[in-house]
Amino acid sequence: MNHKKKTTIKDIANVLNISPAAVSKALHDDSRISAKTKKAVRQVAKNLNYQPNHLASALRSGKSHLVGVIVPRTNSNFFSSVIENMEAVLNKEGYNIIITQSNESYKKECDSIDTLLFTQVDGIIASMANETVNLKHYEKIKSKGIPLILFDRGENDLNVDYIGINDYHSSHMIVEHLVKQGCKRIAHIAGFKRTRIFNNRIRGYVDALKKHDLPLDEELLIESNLTIKDGRAKMTQLLELPKRPDAVYVAGDYAALGALQVLNEQNINMPNDIALVGFGNEPFTSMVTPSITSIEQHSAEIGKQAAKTFLEYTKKKSIKQQLNKIILDAELVIRESSSLKK
Amino acid sequence: MNHKKKTTIKDIANVLNISPAAVSKALHDDSRISAKTKKAVRQVAKNLNYQPNHLASALRSGKSHLVGVIVPRTNSNFFSSVIENMEAVLNKEGYNIIITQSNESYKKECDSIDTLLFTQVDGIIASMANETVNLKHYEKIKSKGIPLILFDRGENDLNVDYIGINDYHSSHMIVEHLVKQGCKRIAHIAGFKRTRIFNNRIRGYVDALKKHDLPLDEELLIESNLTIKDGRAKMTQLLELPKRPDAVYVAGDYAALGALQVLNEQNINMPNDIALVGFGNEPFTSMVTPSITSIEQHSAEIGKQAAKTFLEYTKKKSIKQQLNKIILDAELVIRESSSLKK
Repeated sequence: MNHKKKTTIKDIANVLNISPAAVSKALHDDSRISAKTKKAVRQVAKNLNYQPNHLASALRSGKSHLVGVIVPRTNSNFFSSVIENMEAVLNKEGYNIIITQSNESYKKECDSIDTLLFTQVDGIIASMANETVNLKHYEKIKSKGIPLILFDRGENDLNVDYIGINDYHSSHMIVEHLVKQGCKRIAHIAGFKRTRIFNNRIRGYVDALKKHDLPLDEELLIESNLTIKDGRAKMTQLLELPKRPDAVYVAGDYAALGALQVLNEQNINMPNDIALVGFGNEPFTSMVTPSITSIEQHSAEIGKQAAKTFLEYTKKKSIKQQLNKIILDAELVIRESSSLKK
Repeated sequence: MNHKKKTTIKDIANVLNISPAAVSKALHDDSRISAKTKKAVRQVAKNLNYQPNHLASALRSGKSHLVGVIVPRTNSNFFSSVIENMEAVLNKEGYNIIITQSNESYKKECDSIDTLLFTQVDGIIASMANETVNLKHYEKIKSKGIPLILFDRGENDLNVDYIGINDYHSSHMIVEHLVKQGCKRIAHIAGFKRTRIFNNRIRGYVDALKKHDLPLDEELLIESNLTIKDGRAKMTQLLELPKRPDAVYVAGDYAALGALQVLNEQNINMPNDIALVGFGNEPFTSMVTPSITSIEQHSAEIGKQAAKTFLEYTKKKSIKQQLNKIILDAELVIRESSSLKK
């Protein structure tokens, strides 16, 4: 396998004995070139099997028709469903997407942005890594005049378009449901406060407790990375308390799965001893025993809206940030893990 | 948000009153430029905050330090685990990856290849879409002299590097296991024969039946796309046969999950009425009731080997296809769905 010699504009110029610049102008249908020369150039280009360099063309026009996507990870149903629906909308309009994953790492997120800027994407749609606090790398996208749209995990301080669900209200809804089931000591295995969506979930939890005159016990509110492993560790920690909770609301389904494993291993009855609620409505929540109550985040709608928000930029001449904030209402899907028989 | 004016080589040239070509040579440490001029160029470049255009530089050097990955979909644990492990090895060597998904569509796979070639990737690591029969788009990668490495779903006729598991032997192992459990009428919900890995699984199934003098009943061998929906439909079809199977081996875990749902809905006891085996060892196989026996495909190892195979090319001057074929032994993970109490 060897590099084949590619026909260049220079080769065409040599055949016709004109300048490469004239060939380039002819191929771009420039009015300064005669119809006769244009015809000759096109004929020679065809004969020599000339393939225009799309990358060079993108450099000139500033349009690659590529949209870059950054997600913390691709193996979550939420993110892959967002991507799938985003892609369907963008493909219809002639845009392809390239995906990078941060693996929740700030450094990898920086690398992803550099990579996408390098490939001359026309826009970036991203959801932030858990580790991200400093936002300079996102400022870089803005300073290059490339549309940036955030979804799910988006930092409001950046002043960019954002699509997500109402996390505060979702948390409120979960606590209300657990209170209705008769639960009085509700724990929250939370995400990190520094990430806005998790902060909003914590606020919703705290405010709903207050509303129902339930005391806020600090040992019942634990921040974590929300992996399966975290769910196991934090659930174990809660079970070791002198006064156990009668319900645990976990801010992510993977951690809820870890919590469920620990409860099953210790033969603790769900929901009668401890009710369990997750967040995200990952497909496995309906497959496990007991099935897990969770929040449906409307990933399909988030993906579509993110794509549409990007497409609005492509229809404008000047790239001026629009600052759309689309907040969707989430839905509580009640399953066995929190359906108390009273 | 506006496009900021970027410093160009021309700006530096104007300040120093030399040609842009001389600036470029100086920045690339060309021996034809004096040490004095080089120093001056670097100083002005720094003062003007000159940022070299990496894309233009990649066009010149032909090195982007990007590896393109094409997978049928990202929301399968197998593919995301392959990608994660591949990425870890490549990151260490200074390569970043960009991911595209074909969604099992031939057309989208063609688009993915065009996109990756456009972004000037240094190599492509791919697993083919179910729909793919024509291989011209892969030939295009080869003809451009870009290393192409296939994994899992790779077509041998292309004569490129390939990393996968021994599908024929895995199928054999599954049938042997079911025979040992006392099963005599073993059905196979298969993938499409035109995809080599599924063809190998079918051959392994057929040969193992022969070995154990079990008759091959054509109505027990059904090709499909192996989605959850296919698993439901094909399982329903098998249950409508006048003579039902006593075991079903499904060539993919998602379809096995669909089959399990139908069996549970119809209150058919697994494994005593019908034993069930999947393929791929997706995490949900251990979470569902009953847990599903499956084949572990060593996704981590496949990812690492694919990355290493690519890196071998980067250490050579000429890109000559190596034709490594790495075939890993798979492992049967026996769970409740096929453990008969005899």
